[in-house]
Amino acid sequence: MAEEKRTEIDKLGEFGLIERLAGGVKHYHPETIRGIGDDAAVLDIGNEFLITSTDLLTEGIHFDLSYVPLQHLGYKAIAVNVSDIAAMNGKPKQVTVSMGLSNRFSVEAVEALYEGIHAACKDYEVDLVGGDTTASSSGLILSVTALGTVGKHDIIYRSGAQENDILCVTGDLGGAFIGLQILEREKQEYLANPEMQPKLEKYDYVVGRQLRPKARMDILHELRDLVVKPSAMIDLSDGLASDAFHLCKASDLGIVIYEDKLPIDKQTYETAAEFSMDPNTCALNGGEDYELLFTIPPGDFDKIKNHADIHTIGYMQKKENGKAFVTRNGNTVELKAQGWKHF
Amino acid sequence: MAEEKRTEIDKLGEFGLIERLAGGVKHYHPETIRGIGDDAAVLDIGNEFLITSTDLLTEGIHFDLSYVPLQHLGYKAIAVNVSDIAAMNGKPKQVTVSMGLSNRFSVEAVEALYEGIHAACKDYEVDLVGGDTTASSSGLILSVTALGTVGKHDIIYRSGAQENDILCVTGDLGGAFIGLQILEREKQEYLANPEMQPKLEKYDYVVGRQLRPKARMDILHELRDLVVKPSAMIDLSDGLASDAFHLCKASDLGIVIYEDKLPIDKQTYETAAEFSMDPNTCALNGGEDYELLFTIPPGDFDKIKNHADIHTIGYMQKKENGKAFVTRNGNTVELKAQGWKHF
Repeated sequence: MAEEKRTEIDKLGEFGLIERLAGGVKHYHPETIRGIGDDAAVLDIGNEFLITSTDLLTEGIHFDLSYVPLQHLGYKAIAVNVSDIAAMNGKPKQVTVSMGLSNRFSVEAVEALYEGIHAACKDYEVDLVGGDTTASSSGLILSVTALGTVGKHDIIYRSGAQENDILCVTGDLGGAFIGLQILEREKQEYLANPEMQPKLEKYDYVVGRQLRPKARMDILHELRDLVVKPSAMIDLSDGLASDAFHLCKASDLGIVIYEDKLPIDKQTYETAAEFSMDPNTCALNGGEDYELLFTIPPGDFDKIKNHADIHTIGYMQKKENGKAFVTRNGNTVELKAQGWKHF
Repeated sequence: MAEEKRTEIDKLGEFGLIERLAGGVKHYHPETIRGIGDDAAVLDIGNEFLITSTDLLTEGIHFDLSYVPLQHLGYKAIAVNVSDIAAMNGKPKQVTVSMGLSNRFSVEAVEALYEGIHAACKDYEVDLVGGDTTASSSGLILSVTALGTVGKHDIIYRSGAQENDILCVTGDLGGAFIGLQILEREKQEYLANPEMQPKLEKYDYVVGRQLRPKARMDILHELRDLVVKPSAMIDLSDGLASDAFHLCKASDLGIVIYEDKLPIDKQTYETAAEFSMDPNTCALNGGEDYELLFTIPPGDFDKIKNHADIHTIGYMQKKENGKAFVTRNGNTVELKAQGWKHF
């Protein structure tokens, strides 16, 4: 018998696998406007679009319950899905939450998780409308699906960027990644000496970035007030470089990003130094910041230039000109996407 | 320090836990018509309702890959979600599929799974529009969300049954459960003697009921042709008795089910005997048949009485009169819901 062919999944990676599986998918319903390939799927429901996004979070891969409180995990699971809806310029409205639980989890533990879920539902005004609850043979599994709506003329895809559009990012970058390093270090120290008290006060900002990210709904409202509609948008879950690659691919363009424009918080900067890490690398490749990355026509620059929380970090260029990263000393190198790999 | 309270989840069970977690959930959007508590959530999207349902399937709990081919698993994951949409009298339109994979799985294995997913999408004419693909620290996790639409006057809830409505069930019952017993027995025999060839031909019908259930979309079309609109409906995932309890609870009624009316296939009957099991118990408490259980006004009886695949098995009665099971020899006993427990 011929030996069966075996290709390891990490040879393709998450995005390669998705492309392979989604290839040639046929749609039967004209209401299906966009399927796989953006932050959310887009369905025509008549007067507006319905958008839906889903995330699967598994213990040991996406979270470590030895330092992630269940309340925060519940909050974050909702926030990251709301963030996907935000990245389409949508209004989140409903979520479903499915949960797989091993027998390690008590009713009280699940209630703590739901405290966070309910808190996020309240903050983002989304309705918890369903889900599935079942056993798991190992650890905690969370699967969240978010539904939202967006006006047909308001929707923003990854694919809408134009040559010379200005690249903007909200908030600051790399903090969630550095927060994770702190939590991992404290865990190791605790394992080595359980008498030790965690020293997290000094790192409250970056730890908060990791444990309790916010979906930037506020930015959508402010852009509307400024009468700016981004030409393309994505939320930063995999890391700036990797997510910028998604924008480039969808819009069929190249990009230029300036190192000295990357917004990095002082605490991220200083803590990166403690780990002998380059803060710019953290900003480029650290994932889970859940900020918004978007492009605007050059003519809109004046409208956003004074916004304290929107930073212009580069621009889109012809695909042939490639993906460039301009370092602080003026050298231009090729932008590399290392990003967050969950394989 | 006071000891923390710990309540085991199986003390509450799946439905008790869901009730506890969903208690007091506030909805922010008037478009959210129904949340937790039916086969699917219901959202008002203007001219019609959007319905959405989600299922989480975990290896070792919901399926055993030593006898479930990945193609069949993929097909079933879609079919059971389509079945939830069918149970609301809806038309399934889109699905998202999230997948957690341990490193045991190769690209070829995932492709086999997707073969089944694509086959089901084709059979039910649903569009695969998104999902999430990630690693899992143990085994395979599948989370499927289905979206569908239904006319506002066509939707059927679990809660619409009236006193004296006739209880109908489609197809036959207990087959999926008996099929599972066969597969488990063959697995044990194989483990004891790996040289042994599985003998499944004789059991093809019941094994097929377990491995490749169908969502009864056909019945919805036929009921429409017969101009019958059920007053309440649910799909049989947990088992007839357990799902009948859901109908009773939602409709605030009692029920009568007749043992001699239970539709049971000859192969189910004979195979149950091999295991010294009562086929009626299999029909009542075996899960995963994915048939439709519904109620119709007595005046509609004539319209369905000659339908070969719709069986009248009882009727709804006042809540105070309880839930009754009338045995073949005419005794009336209390109906008990053992159902499928995934805890």
